[in-house]
Amino acid sequence: MVDATLIGLISIFTAGLTIAIGSIGPALGEARAAAQALASIAQQPDEANTITRTLFVSLAMIESTAIYCFVVAMILIFANPFWDAAMQAGAAGGG
Amino acid sequence: MVDATLIGLISIFTAGLTIAIGSIGPALGEARAAAQALASIAQQPDEANTITRTLFVSLAMIESTAIYCFVVAMILIFANPFWDAAMQAGAAGGG
Amino acid sequence: MVDATLIGLISIFTAGLTIAIGSIGPALGEARAAAQALASIAQQPDEANTITRTLFVSLAMIESTAIYCFVVAMILIFANPFWDAAMQAGAAGGG
Amino acid sequence: MVDATLIGLISIFTAGLTIAIGSIGPALGEARAAAQALASIAQQPDEANTITRTLFVSLAMIESTAIYCFVVAMILIFANPFWDAAMQAGAAGGG
Amino acid sequence: MVDATLIGLISIFTAGLTIAIGSIGPALGEARAAAQALASIAQQPDEANTITRTLFVSLAMIESTAIYCFVVAMILIFANPFWDAAMQAGAAGGG
Amino acid sequence: MVDATLIGLISIFTAGLTIAIGSIGPALGEARAAAQALASIAQQPDEANTITRTLFVSLAMIESTAIYCFVVAMILIFANPFWDAAMQAGAAGGG
Amino acid sequence: MVDATLIGLISIFTAGLTIAIGSIGPALGEARAAAQALASIAQQPDEANTITRTLFVSLAMIESTAIYCFVVAMILIFANPFWDAAMQAGAAGGG
Amino acid sequence: MVDATLIGLISIFTAGLTIAIGSIGPALGEARAAAQALASIAQQPDEANTITRTLFVSLAMIESTAIYCFVVAMILIFANPFWDAAMQAGAAGGG
Amino acid sequence: MVDATLIGLISIFTAGLTIAIGSIGPALGEARAAAQALASIAQQPDEANTITRTLFVSLAMIESTAIYCFVVAMILIFANPFWDAAMQAGAAGGG
Amino acid sequence: MVDATLIGLISIFTAGLTIAIGSIGPALGEARAAAQALASIAQQPDEANTITRTLFVSLAMIESTAIYCFVVAMILIFANPFWDAAMQAGAAGGG
Amino acid sequence: MVDATLIGLISIFTAGLTIAIGSIGPALGEARAAAQALASIAQQPDEANTITRTLFVSLAMIESTAIYCFVVAMILIFANPFWDAAMQAGAAGGG
Amino acid sequence: MVDATLIGLISIFTAGLTIAIGSIGPALGEARAAAQALASIAQQPDEANTITRTLFVSLAMIESTAIYCFVVAMILIFANPFWDAAMQAGAAGGG
Amino acid sequence: MVDATLIGLISIFTAGLTIAIGSIGPALGEARAAAQALASIAQQPDEANTITRTLFVSLAMIESTAIYCFVVAMILIFANPFWDAAMQAGAAGGG
Amino acid sequence: MVDATLIGLISIFTAGLTIAIGSIGPALGEARAAAQALASIAQQPDEANTITRTLFVSLAMIESTAIYCFVVAMILIFANPFWDAAMQAGAAGGG
Repeated sequence: MVDATLIGLISIFTAGLTIAIGSIGPALGEARAAAQALASIAQQPDEANTITRTLFVSLAMIESTAIYCFVVAMILIFANPFWDAAMQAGAAGGG
Repeated sequence: MVDATLIGLISIFTAGLTIAIGSIGPALGEARAAAQALASIAQQPDEANTITRTLFVSLAMIESTAIYCFVVAMILIFANPFWDAAMQAGAAGGG
Repeated sequence: MVDATLIGLISIFTAGLTIAIGSIGPALGEARAAAQALASIAQQPDEANTITRTLFVSLAMIESTAIYCFVVAMILIFANPFWDAAMQAGAAGGG
Repeated sequence: MVDATLIGLISIFTAGLTIAIGSIGPALGEARAAAQALASIAQQPDEANTITRTLFVSLAMIESTAIYCFVVAMILIFANPFWDAAMQAGAAGGG
Repeated sequence: MVDATLIGLISIFTAGLTIAIGSIGPALGEARAAAQALASIAQQPDEANTITRTLFVSLAMIESTAIYCFVVAMILIFANPFWDAAMQAGAAGGG
Repeated sequence: MVDATLIGLISIFTAGLTIAIGSIGPALGEARAAAQALASIAQQPDEANTITRTLFVSLAMIESTAIYCFVVAMILIFANPFWDAAMQAGAAGGG
Repeated sequence: MVDATLIGLISIFTAGLTIAIGSIGPALGEARAAAQALASIAQQPDEANTITRTLFVSLAMIESTAIYCFVVAMILIFANPFWDAAMQAGAAGGG
Repeated sequence: MVDATLIGLISIFTAGLTIAIGSIGPALGEARAAAQALASIAQQPDEANTITRTLFVSLAMIESTAIYCFVVAMILIFANPFWDAAMQAGAAGGG
Repeated sequence: MVDATLIGLISIFTAGLTIAIGSIGPALGEARAAAQALASIAQQPDEANTITRTLFVSLAMIESTAIYCFVVAMILIFANPFWDAAMQAGAAGGG
Repeated sequence: MVDATLIGLISIFTAGLTIAIGSIGPALGEARAAAQALASIAQQPDEANTITRTLFVSLAMIESTAIYCFVVAMILIFANPFWDAAMQAGAAGGG
Repeated sequence: MVDATLIGLISIFTAGLTIAIGSIGPALGEARAAAQALASIAQQPDEANTITRTLFVSLAMIESTAIYCFVVAMILIFANPFWDAAMQAGAAGGG
Repeated sequence: MVDATLIGLISIFTAGLTIAIGSIGPALGEARAAAQALASIAQQPDEANTITRTLFVSLAMIESTAIYCFVVAMILIFANPFWDAAMQAGAAGGG
Repeated sequence: MVDATLIGLISIFTAGLTIAIGSIGPALGEARAAAQALASIAQQPDEANTITRTLFVSLAMIESTAIYCFVVAMILIFANPFWDAAMQAGAAGGG
Repeated sequence: MVDATLIGLISIFTAGLTIAIGSIGPALGEARAAAQALASIAQQPDEANTITRTLFVSLAMIESTAIYCFVVAMILIFANPFWDAAMQAGAAGGG
């Protein structure tokens, strides 16, 4: 079962690293957009609706990159094709 | 039990690293948004409600990336499918 | 099956790293563009339409680099030609 | 007892690293929010209540990421499921 | 098949790394150009056409460096001359 | 006694590293908050009381992350459960 | 064929790294020049022609460094003299 | 005596590293607070007393993190429980 | 042929690294000079000729450092004296 | 005498590293405080006495962290308890 | 011929690295000087001659450090005294 | 004589590293203080005496950290107690 | 001849690294001084002589650090006392 | 002669590294002081004498740290006590 164990090890490590590194950019990015939106609302209260709408679209775009990372991490943990193949190989012969 | 031990080692290390690295971005990001909100309130006290509401939505979005990391860390410690598989294999034969 | 396992290991690690690193640039970039758009709307509400349109085109361009990374990560996990070749070789003889 | 020792080693190292790295972001973040709050109070003394309230909510949000790290560190030291499993295995046979 | 496996490993890793690193520069660069274009439109709405046209030419130039990286990554995965040579050698004798 | 020695080594190293790294963030953070408080007092001497009170609450919050690190370091040196377990194992048999 | 394989490995890795690292500078550089050009057009619409012409000359100069990297990467993949020598040696005797 | 020597080595290295790294943050932090205090005194000479008092409280808070590091370094050199245990073990048998 | 292979490996890697690293400085540098030239033209359209002439001389100076790197990379690939010596030695005896 | 030699090696290296790293923070910190003091004197010559006195107190606080590092370095070179223990052990038997 | 090969390897690698790293500083430096010269010409067109003359002297000084690096790289490739000594030793006996 | 040689090696390396790293902070720090002093003199020529005196005291404080490093480096080269002990041991028996 | 070869290797590598790293600081430093001189001339054309003279003295001081590095690099290549000693030892016996 | 060779190797490497790293700080520092001096002269031509004198004293202080590094490098190459000891040992017996 050494092969499957190695794939498990690297999947665990990669999943954690992916979401950890992948959360830095979006978190800082959303903060920047939100901070500017707050400043804009304070500067132009009458445009609060347009600003809020544009902010939400932007947050969705930025969040999408975090979602990509989360999806990859989840795939690596719960739907890993390499792990499945190793499991089948282990069930068939011993790996 | 070497296989299970290795998976345990890497799970512990990855869980800690994930939440440690994953807390940097959101903490700085939320601080940036909050700081700008405080500045905006001081500049436009009449818009405090709109600013606070937008701030909370933004904080929730930013916090979500920290939550992703926390979820992955908790999964790695308490609901790790690779560890379960190794435990079953160890119970069945010896690994 | 050692060869296939190695290819699997490196594919998992590379896929995670690719999307993790590849999400930093686009997330920060989109945030910068969005922040400036929000500031511009607050400065020139009458040009909100032009600004929003230019913003969306720009976000699409920036998102494209994140998509490249996501595509490469997905190819490495689900449509990896090297893995297929190793699988066929393993099926044929043993690798 | 080698397995349990290895898990103990990596738990100690990860627990320390987690809280050490995890304290950088929140400390700097809370400082930023607090600094801006102090500046805002100096600028708009009449809004001190609103500013202070928003500051405390924000500090709580930011502190939460430090708490996540502290919780993970404490779990790794005092409630580590992998260590428990290794202890039971050691008690049963010798590991 | 060891030689081909090694070439496959390094191709996978290099392809991912190339597009991951190669997306940082263009993403940040396009964001900078787009942000300035949005600011310029807000400052000079009458020149929106000239600004937009110059922006698109610039985005195309910047995107070109991301394309270079994507092209190299795709060549390494799907049209790798070294892999082809290793495959032929493996087919001829065994490598 | 090799096991206990290894746990001792890693505990010493981790304890030092934890408090060393963990002191950077809070020190810089407290300095930022304090600097802004001093600037605010100079700008609004009449609000010195409110500013000082808010400063102290903020310093306490920021110091808390340093305390977390110090607590973990002290636990690792003086109340280390892994070391105790290793000591008991060493007393029982030899480890 | 070990020699040729090694040369292939290092060529693949170097080609990817070259274009990946080599795209950071030009992408950021072109963005800076383009951003300034857009700001200048907004400031002096009457000089749009001179500005655009100077911008294109500058973009060409900056792009040239990216081209250098792309040329070297292509040479390493498709016209590698060391690989050719290794191939000839392998064809002549075995290397 | 190898065990005691290893513990001595790591204690020496960790003690030095702890106080070295741990002095960067407080030194820069105290400098920032002091610099702002000097600027504030120059701006509001009449509030010199309040500013100086707040500065000293802040310096004490910041210095505390340096003290934590110094305490840990001193404990590691002069009151190291792991070293004592190793000495006792060495005195009892030979380690 | 091991010697020649090693020289080939290091030449390939060095050539790519040289032009990759060597393109960062000039690309950013030319961008800075060009950006300032565009700003200067917008500020003083009457001096466009003098500015453009000075810009081109400066770009040539900056480009010269990129050329140095490109020349060294080309020498390492196509006119490498160490490779020639290794080839001759290999032709004479076997190396 | 291998044990004593190892302790000597690590003491030398740590002593140098401690004072080298430990001098960066205080040097930059004192410079910042001094620079601000000079600026404050130029701005408010009448408060030169108060400013100079506050500066000296601050410099003393900042210098204290450098002194901590110097003390630790001197202890490691001239009053190292681990070295003394190793010397005694070496005098007693041979180590 | 192993000795000569090693010297050749390290010479190739060092030559490339020297000119690669050595081009960063001068490229950025010349850009800074040139950018300021362009800004100065736009600000004081009447002093264009003095500014240009001072610029050229400065560029020559800055370029001199790049030349140092290029000279060292060329010496290492084409006039390497260590390589000559190794060649002579190899010609005399075999090395 | 291996022990003495190792101590000599590490002393040489540490001495160089100590003064090299230890010169960065003081050099930049003194420059900052001096630059501010020059600016202050230009702003308040009448206070040149007070400024110069405060500058010299500050330079002395900052230089002290460089002196610490230089002293440690000199001790390691010319008055190294570990080297003396190794020399005596070598003279007595052979080490 | 292994000893002489090792000394040759490390001399080549160190010489290149020394001048490469050593050119960064002076190049950027001279650029900063020159840029400020150009700005000063544009601001005060009447003081061009004083400014130019001070600039040249400063450039000479800054260049001196680059010269130090170049001198050390040249000594290591052409007048290396360790290499001479190794050559003499090799000529006498074989080394 | 292995001992002497090792000492020679580490002396060469350390000497180069010391002066290379040690030139960064002083070069940038002197540039900063000189740049500010030039700006001050342009702002207050009447104080050129005082400014120049203060500049030269400051440059001498900053240069002193570079001199420290150069002295250590020269000592390591031409007056290395460890090398002399190794030479004497080699002359006496063989080392």
